[in-house]
Amino acid sequence: VDYINRLYDKDKTGVEINLERIVVKDLLKSRDVSFDEEKISDDRDDILRRDDIDIVVELIGGYEPSLSIILESIERGKDVVTANKAVLAKYGYEIFSKARRLRRNIGFQASVCGEMRVLDILFNIPSFKDVEAILGIVNGTSNYILSRMEDGESYYDALEEAYEKGYAERDPSLDVEGIDAAQKLSLLSSIVFGIFLDFEGISREGISRVTKSDIKYAKTFGYVIRPLAIAKRRSEGIELRVHPTLVPETHPLAAVRDENNALSIYFYGRKEPLTVIGKGAGEPAARSIVADIVDVARKRSRGLLNLPRIEYSSEKSRVMSVEEFETPYCLRFFVEDKPGTLGNIALILGNYGINISGVAQVPEDKVGDIMPLAIKVDSAGDEAIYKALKEIRRLDRVKEILPIRIYE
Amino acid sequence: VDYINRLYDKDKTGVEINLERIVVKDLLKSRDVSFDEEKISDDRDDILRRDDIDIVVELIGGYEPSLSIILESIERGKDVVTANKAVLAKYGYEIFSKARRLRRNIGFQASVCGEMRVLDILFNIPSFKDVEAILGIVNGTSNYILSRMEDGESYYDALEEAYEKGYAERDPSLDVEGIDAAQKLSLLSSIVFGIFLDFEGISREGISRVTKSDIKYAKTFGYVIRPLAIAKRRSEGIELRVHPTLVPETHPLAAVRDENNALSIYFYGRKEPLTVIGKGAGEPAARSIVADIVDVARKRSRGLLNLPRIEYSSEKSRVMSVEEFETPYCLRFFVEDKPGTLGNIALILGNYGINISGVAQVPEDKVGDIMPLAIKVDSAGDEAIYKALKEIRRLDRVKEILPIRIYE
Repeated sequence: VDYINRLYDKDKTGVEINLERIVVKDLLKSRDVSFDEEKISDDRDDILRRDDIDIVVELIGGYEPSLSIILESIERGKDVVTANKAVLAKYGYEIFSKARRLRRNIGFQASVCGEMRVLDILFNIPSFKDVEAILGIVNGTSNYILSRMEDGESYYDALEEAYEKGYAERDPSLDVEGIDAAQKLSLLSSIVFGIFLDFEGISREGISRVTKSDIKYAKTFGYVIRPLAIAKRRSEGIELRVHPTLVPETHPLAAVRDENNALSIYFYGRKEPLTVIGKGAGEPAARSIVADIVDVARKRSRGLLNLPRIEYSSEKSRVMSVEEFETPYCLRFFVEDKPGTLGNIALILGNYGINISGVAQVPEDKVGDIMPLAIKVDSAGDEAIYKALKEIRRLDRVKEILPIRIYE
Repeated sequence: VDYINRLYDKDKTGVEINLERIVVKDLLKSRDVSFDEEKISDDRDDILRRDDIDIVVELIGGYEPSLSIILESIERGKDVVTANKAVLAKYGYEIFSKARRLRRNIGFQASVCGEMRVLDILFNIPSFKDVEAILGIVNGTSNYILSRMEDGESYYDALEEAYEKGYAERDPSLDVEGIDAAQKLSLLSSIVFGIFLDFEGISREGISRVTKSDIKYAKTFGYVIRPLAIAKRRSEGIELRVHPTLVPETHPLAAVRDENNALSIYFYGRKEPLTVIGKGAGEPAARSIVADIVDVARKRSRGLLNLPRIEYSSEKSRVMSVEEFETPYCLRFFVEDKPGTLGNIALILGNYGINISGVAQVPEDKVGDIMPLAIKVDSAGDEAIYKALKEIRRLDRVKEILPIRIYE
């Protein structure tokens, strides 16, 4: 109660929130929070069928039963507050369309970096034509792991630590394979471009193959590695991607470490972005759910509708495929330490018109006969890069290859 | 028109803005923008007395005639959008009270770091009891000057450059003496704490006395110098101050350079702040004025009132006086290069119970017989510090003293 009293204030908001009912899956599960036992139930109709309940707060996660609860709430004239990025990244078009038709509001700040109000900032930019790109660190677990690795920890120790601190989701692949980030990018980019962009169409590379050597070599080139979600408008279509990225040390996102989240918004004709840095999970999420309840309650009292305008993807809003991407790369190889290796690799890259802009190799990093080697190359198109890497992979002495994109 | 079309989009906002009338002081002044000549006038009644005008956008600046135009607009049932931080920092209580009584909205995002929507972020935190402190770089000119000095330029060259680039206001004292920053801090802190905090009560120190040596010595101690505006809630009252500050190199605000603005929000019980970084002037301001017009228009259509709750200062909201502040300091002296100087100064500091935590002096910085000397001291209360400095000033060999506060 003290906690709620700190987060919510009738004086400031002018809104009175009454918690009427809590519906849970398992009534018997023990919980650390204290509340009125009579308000708890395991039947969703105890909320949905009560006409005196105005706002339904959905905090379940996943597709079902969240989707049907949200849709039924709208049909029954209730406004909805949700922190469920998964259901919005998959069924957002359906949910927002129904809400618009039935004139109900959806508060969904808490679904992406809630406390930072980035969805609200993007929603309030008065034009679809003003933003060229957004660049975000939207998954705290991935960023935490890469930060710890920067400090010298192994990937697995860092992942375990993320669990212990409560940052990582139960299924780590949601975090480290970029699924969570892709869902959030789907929502952010749908709002900024006005087109529903299903998260399943977003190209993803996880962070699980990044090693400490990669981080070290990135540093020798003047970069840090951050797990980025990127949406960019190009003449060919919309580029959407989630992957570990070399970011210049001077970029505002380079300073974002540990479990922190951040979003940079690039406007046309301007080099430096607008950047918001904060936390995504835990208390910050609670704060933004309360803020959403207040906001939805205020609008409900006056019948003001405030929903994002999102069309269904059409020809003009084509999502680009991976083969069309063009970014510089840091190519990291594990190779046998024999003369001529670099020469052979360089030759193949040259044959595909790929220009080398930096090479790093530190003798101390040798393990047995195997040595890491990092080559920084200019943009040449993913097709050329992947053909070259396929050919390099055939060299006996090359044991492993990891291409990591560079943001410039 | 292209420019407006990029910034504003009927599809996204669902709002149609019609520019009905522009009132200027001098009709004959030549302007670089093209618009319908028939819409321009020099009589404010052409706006105020027209019943079909819903929103008045005030972009004059200063107290008058802005204040009377804003108040008369409210009285005549119009909503107001303003970028005028000066009038709000002085007459905000009056303006917001009248608007609340007559149920009119005031859009004022553009008055403080508009594009960054920091006023909106603070307004939407659902509690007055959740934020412990805010820390901002809210004056782009001051930050630009200190950044250039970091790169080795003199104060006056940097100021001239700021003029040339259009960052500095016509009267430089508004920027470099912290008046502009104090006005913005007044607004930010009034909204976050719910109490009207007149900017004239805010303690200010300008950046004009900072030298390149100060920046260099700050660096040897692991800090950069940034022009900060600080509001902090303490048991004794509210601490409000604007001054050049040593900020740890690892703080998010340390990375904010050039004309960029930023705000860090500290919640109770959490070490790391929520930080927004962006630009304050020029196109970003235009973007936020358009966003405010859209927002006010939407609310007007439904009669939704969304004004900050601000009480008039009372006993419980006491603003602390400078004598009560307690911060560590970097004390920079210009001294004659004679043996025993440091000893004498250290002795006096010790007599006042002030603990020295670092000393820096670089022989190359000597000019003639005069040498800079920097001493880092722990918090001891401003009263003790100022008494000690008064005594140190009496030493023949001490030529100049500049105490700069440290943020920790």
